[in-house]
Amino acid sequence: MAKQEEVKLLGVWNSPFVCTVKWALKLKGVYYENIEEEDLLYSKSELLLRSNPIYKKVPVLLHNGKPVIESLNILEYIDETWPANQMMPQDPYERAMARFWAKFADEKFMTSSFEAFAASEEEKQKKAQVAAVECLRFLEEHLKGKPFFGGETIGYLDIAIGWIAHWLQVWEEAGSMKIMDPTKFPSINVWMKNFVESPVIKDDLPLRDKMVLVLQENRKTLADFYKM
Amino acid sequence: MAKQEEVKLLGVWNSPFVCTVKWALKLKGVYYENIEEEDLLYSKSELLLRSNPIYKKVPVLLHNGKPVIESLNILEYIDETWPANQMMPQDPYERAMARFWAKFADEKFMTSSFEAFAASEEEKQKKAQVAAVECLRFLEEHLKGKPFFGGETIGYLDIAIGWIAHWLQVWEEAGSMKIMDPTKFPSINVWMKNFVESPVIKDDLPLRDKMVLVLQENRKTLADFYKM
Repeated sequence: MAKQEEVKLLGVWNSPFVCTVKWALKLKGVYYENIEEEDLLYSKSELLLRSNPIYKKVPVLLHNGKPVIESLNILEYIDETWPANQMMPQDPYERAMARFWAKFADEKFMTSSFEAFAASEEEKQKKAQVAAVECLRFLEEHLKGKPFFGGETIGYLDIAIGWIAHWLQVWEEAGSMKIMDPTKFPSINVWMKNFVESPVIKDDLPLRDKMVLVLQENRKTLADFYKM
Repeated sequence: MAKQEEVKLLGVWNSPFVCTVKWALKLKGVYYENIEEEDLLYSKSELLLRSNPIYKKVPVLLHNGKPVIESLNILEYIDETWPANQMMPQDPYERAMARFWAKFADEKFMTSSFEAFAASEEEKQKKAQVAAVECLRFLEEHLKGKPFFGGETIGYLDIAIGWIAHWLQVWEEAGSMKIMDPTKFPSINVWMKNFVESPVIKDDLPLRDKMVLVLQENRKTLADFYKM
């Protein structure tokens, strides 16, 4: 990386979206300054409000002062800016599939599995749990016995949906419920282990027990905030 | 295009998402078979259900039998598969910006401007209208006097958000409300004209009066269907 480059990542320690960006930067060997927001729900920093005036959300990647916003968008930016260790497949159809599944996991699976933990009513939780299991079924089918979604090594889709391998268990524990069943989803089960044990990933995983505790303490606040 | 290639587009005549794909295919000079769904709300075709089992939505691009789903994803696939008349900018930061604004328009501006037409209660309509005007303000700022979002010629972002230039007036008329103000948004106003008058675009615009009529007739059905 050229010396004059300045890369900053605006985030919070326990956000899956922020972690995907950290993993991508590490895979690329890009040095960055990690800047943490202190209170993302009720008191956002000036830098965040200035960098992302529309959504006011993390992560924001600041590259030589210019902000890039939204984790999947940031991943593609990183891949195109620092070409070493290419994350995206070369084939246009495989690229389209990778983008499709990344968005699916963010929009469908994350929403339902988080709601299965946080929702205010038991009925809502159960419904979300069923939806989350259905999402895993699709992902299992797509993975079909490969060690990684990227094939033999970690690729864009592994990074984009890698949060599943770490956060899902946290939400299950904090919410006293179960979504992942190794007998039903054997490929996903192996992938989860492959992913969190990878050298690029294993040092950038927020502490599991600390996350469970924070979630349990803030469950009602989160349900109210996200209107679940 | 090689002779053995088979390109089919599964859509409906009045969908902005489907039209963006039509414009991109025309820009690239790709011949395709246009297949129309007859009743997208209550009776979807077997081909659609098989091609997009997760979302069951149009557009679906079938390239040699393989389905590509979601309009923005399809646009990138088209651009990478048929490189003539490149739609995406080359610079990674400009690419990230184009992707960001395309998603913003789809998720924020389309939702609010459609709701300003369709919502069941006047209060909801007014709130959506205010949100839609705010979105246009951001887009005006981003365009800042250029003839196209892509610069001197139509690019990815113009195609991706081109529906604004045609559908917004239709929703305004069908909903007897106003979002677009040429004095407040002069760059957007010029861009709208530039866009719909472009040779690539002008022949693939659904009939305005027919759309207004269909929307007026189905306003309540749409509000119920989308829970607005």
